[in-house]
Amino acid sequence: MDVYISGVGMTKFGRSKDSLEKMMAEAASSGLEEAQLKRVDAIYTGVMNVEEFVGDSNFAALLVDTLGLTGIASTRVETASSTGAGAFEAGFYAVASGHMKHVLVLAGEKMTHLPTAKTTRILSEAIDRSERRYGVTMPALAAMIAQKYAREFNLSPLKLEDILAQVAIKNHSNGCLNPYAQFRKMITKEDYLKSQMVSYPLRLYDCAPITDGASAMILTSEPTPIKVSGIGHATDTAAARHRTSFTSFNSTKEAAQKAYTMAQLKPSDIQFAEVHDAFTLFEIIGTEDLGFFSAGEGWKALEEGITHLRGRLPINPSGGSKARGHPVGASGLAQLVEIVYQLRGEAGTERQLERAEIGLAQSIGGLGNNNLVTILERTDRKRILKVGATRFQEGWSPEDHPAMSVSKKSSPSPPPTGVGILETFTILYAVPEGFRSPLTLGFVKTKEGEVVMACNPDDRSPKELKMGKKVSLKMREGLYVFEKLTLWSRLKHWIKK
Amino acid sequence: MDVYISGVGMTKFGRSKDSLEKMMAEAASSGLEEAQLKRVDAIYTGVMNVEEFVGDSNFAALLVDTLGLTGIASTRVETASSTGAGAFEAGFYAVASGHMKHVLVLAGEKMTHLPTAKTTRILSEAIDRSERRYGVTMPALAAMIAQKYAREFNLSPLKLEDILAQVAIKNHSNGCLNPYAQFRKMITKEDYLKSQMVSYPLRLYDCAPITDGASAMILTSEPTPIKVSGIGHATDTAAARHRTSFTSFNSTKEAAQKAYTMAQLKPSDIQFAEVHDAFTLFEIIGTEDLGFFSAGEGWKALEEGITHLRGRLPINPSGGSKARGHPVGASGLAQLVEIVYQLRGEAGTERQLERAEIGLAQSIGGLGNNNLVTILERTDRKRILKVGATRFQEGWSPEDHPAMSVSKKSSPSPPPTGVGILETFTILYAVPEGFRSPLTLGFVKTKEGEVVMACNPDDRSPKELKMGKKVSLKMREGLYVFEKLTLWSRLKHWIKK
Repeated sequence: MDVYISGVGMTKFGRSKDSLEKMMAEAASSGLEEAQLKRVDAIYTGVMNVEEFVGDSNFAALLVDTLGLTGIASTRVETASSTGAGAFEAGFYAVASGHMKHVLVLAGEKMTHLPTAKTTRILSEAIDRSERRYGVTMPALAAMIAQKYAREFNLSPLKLEDILAQVAIKNHSNGCLNPYAQFRKMITKEDYLKSQMVSYPLRLYDCAPITDGASAMILTSEPTPIKVSGIGHATDTAAARHRTSFTSFNSTKEAAQKAYTMAQLKPSDIQFAEVHDAFTLFEIIGTEDLGFFSAGEGWKALEEGITHLRGRLPINPSGGSKARGHPVGASGLAQLVEIVYQLRGEAGTERQLERAEIGLAQSIGGLGNNNLVTILERTDRKRILKVGATRFQEGWSPEDHPAMSVSKKSSPSPPPTGVGILETFTILYAVPEGFRSPLTLGFVKTKEGEVVMACNPDDRSPKELKMGKKVSLKMREGLYVFEKLTLWSRLKHWIKK
Repeated sequence: MDVYISGVGMTKFGRSKDSLEKMMAEAASSGLEEAQLKRVDAIYTGVMNVEEFVGDSNFAALLVDTLGLTGIASTRVETASSTGAGAFEAGFYAVASGHMKHVLVLAGEKMTHLPTAKTTRILSEAIDRSERRYGVTMPALAAMIAQKYAREFNLSPLKLEDILAQVAIKNHSNGCLNPYAQFRKMITKEDYLKSQMVSYPLRLYDCAPITDGASAMILTSEPTPIKVSGIGHATDTAAARHRTSFTSFNSTKEAAQKAYTMAQLKPSDIQFAEVHDAFTLFEIIGTEDLGFFSAGEGWKALEEGITHLRGRLPINPSGGSKARGHPVGASGLAQLVEIVYQLRGEAGTERQLERAEIGLAQSIGGLGNNNLVTILERTDRKRILKVGATRFQEGWSPEDHPAMSVSKKSSPSPPPTGVGILETFTILYAVPEGFRSPLTLGFVKTKEGEVVMACNPDDRSPKELKMGKKVSLKMREGLYVFEKLTLWSRLKHWIKK
């Protein structure tokens, strides 16, 4: 059964005095009003970590009571930072099954009331346990990915800095036009460079902010002008070090393949997209993983203005999570709400895109290990559908899109210490609760080809470390420690003996 | 599209040294082996509070990695203590939509590693915030429901005690025959009476234990001998005091109506059931809410042996959560696994029921505010289906089952203090972290007809309090406090003035 969208709602994102359930009720009532509904058959609620952020469990039931809809089925859905998209997917299947006629998808998070170090600690629980022990955070992992991307595609530190700044500047510029955005101010390259270093080379302006907010959508089996064309959902290894690549996300590629297959579309059919930009570089990588641009070339499209609001393929017209804000549970659904506004032509004269008949949202869960891709389309859009195409996601070939090909790696055994190559590193300044700033962290590849996370208590400046260089690798108090292989370190080693 | 079951799996419930993901992987591999599958299209993971019990978020992705199925879509679903049934429901819609062929539903919880007071505090987060401030726990609320049930249906304290003991004795007796059960020992009335008081009148043997465990099920669109016939899901007010009844659960009644309607069945068609017995009396109330027996008569069916293993309508052949154990996220799915074992005739010679062609599971989320009812059936069972019956849950009339009729109550305004009637009370001995034992708690109905939760710092013996008597109601440090209206208390009140 086809699934349509009959209503959407959003709160303004930012710092809110309202309780989480009050924000969610506000978004829900807009959605219900648009859909002209008083009741729905079920509610699918996306909250990422309501237990630790606000101290409640059984939140799905609490919410239905707050909405005055007591009695209705209510289910909480969670897929880490892609939760809003995960709740949308669960609601989609409920309607697609024919068992539900109208479903309310509701997503939100309340985060700004806690100290930043506590929020950082809570968000870090989405990281693989063995890596989390090092005090690594999402920005630190994203920083190491950025370093690796620059090395792999021969971008100098200055060039990388410039590209990252361009993402932030573009998304802030778009956010200015979005009444729901947390930040509605333009930023300049100078502002970017003045913003504090969070985890080298990522600055505050490379990271989505901490935000309160909620978004809502009504899914229905009754035809409306907007249809759900495709949904894809895929996972990757919990540990970043077990991945085949540090510069792309397999889970985005696989989710995109599934979504394109269900929709019977190819990347070039997409007119605009909301791409998960919790960290600036993730937008660039996203546009490559989605098959819009070749690997290592996403930044060129940005430089050429292709992904700008008036470009050929606008990315994050909403301002993205960078400027709209990032209430972790809500963001995945907020992306889809923006797509609906654009498809309806309701984004406001300045933000409204010229071509807006089909849009895509890509949402990242954790460090890219629970990702969803969703495609929404105007029903009056003209296209020729293949007759009798299967629904089981067969037949679509990613071979036409080399950037999307997924590689697999077998799970490694615990690697030995000795000498290894420093694959990538970061210096983390904004540490989680219980750790001392700064923390130098890196991924080291051993002679056996295994990659381990390691810390470095001595070097606290990016200038002292070089990717691709040999380092010593030891085990100290259960953690891997890496050190430069300098004459002095060899001497120190020899003196200790 | 119809949905079938092609494989199930369980760990032994109890105290486990394994990590949560390891237990879940064990249950999953049994399920996959039975279904002869190496991969599935998606995983639906039910965990109630993995954030606070084990300190992880992004658990759905971690799990798929542990299973060696990296890449597959993975979604976490949560509906409080009915989570296992909630995950089953989400998986059901995914397959019923035609978009998924094979889905793994996986549910579990790890609880025994934490101190009991911490576990009690975590579980209490499922209770309405305004009631939770009093230190009220799930056993305390269940105890007040038991007191009210006894009063409403004219059962003396001794009679109530005897009925509750009979539930515990029956379920322990069934649990003896279940190789997956946490407790495999018979208990006597004497054992029951010797067990410690948790919250008057409920003893340790009235409460499901704290348990580690996992259960798994494979849902498929390919016909197998067992079919999902009906699913219903409904909510109720977060606050117990806002309910119309303290002696039945509207959410069970509504969920049951939906499930019977989808299955085109009536209560008398059900041959056996797994009924949520986190507290002994809940089994009795459940059998009434499900339409098996009239309100206030469920205990008679138990006394007459009707709900015993060899009775006409066996309830909890698995031993229920009382004896099988209650890993909160897993229980809702474990009930369904037991039904599959019975439908297949694989429950073992001693536990196997004679009539096992159609079974029902009822699972309670929170204090009965997020409940699910699921009906499974052998496909070779002969029955005449109504032709052209609607799928939108219309047309089924609960009028034939007066016990199932649902009443509604409007949301109240904050009530005044003064004099009220003590509706029900308990004395809670096993208090959550941060509270001092014992706590005397009650629900008081004001002259205006509103019900409030209140505490009583003076009276610590059940003999000093009587339901239905007038009490004084004051506000002290933001909490309602009730006191007996004795001559002495009136005098005290007068002296203070």
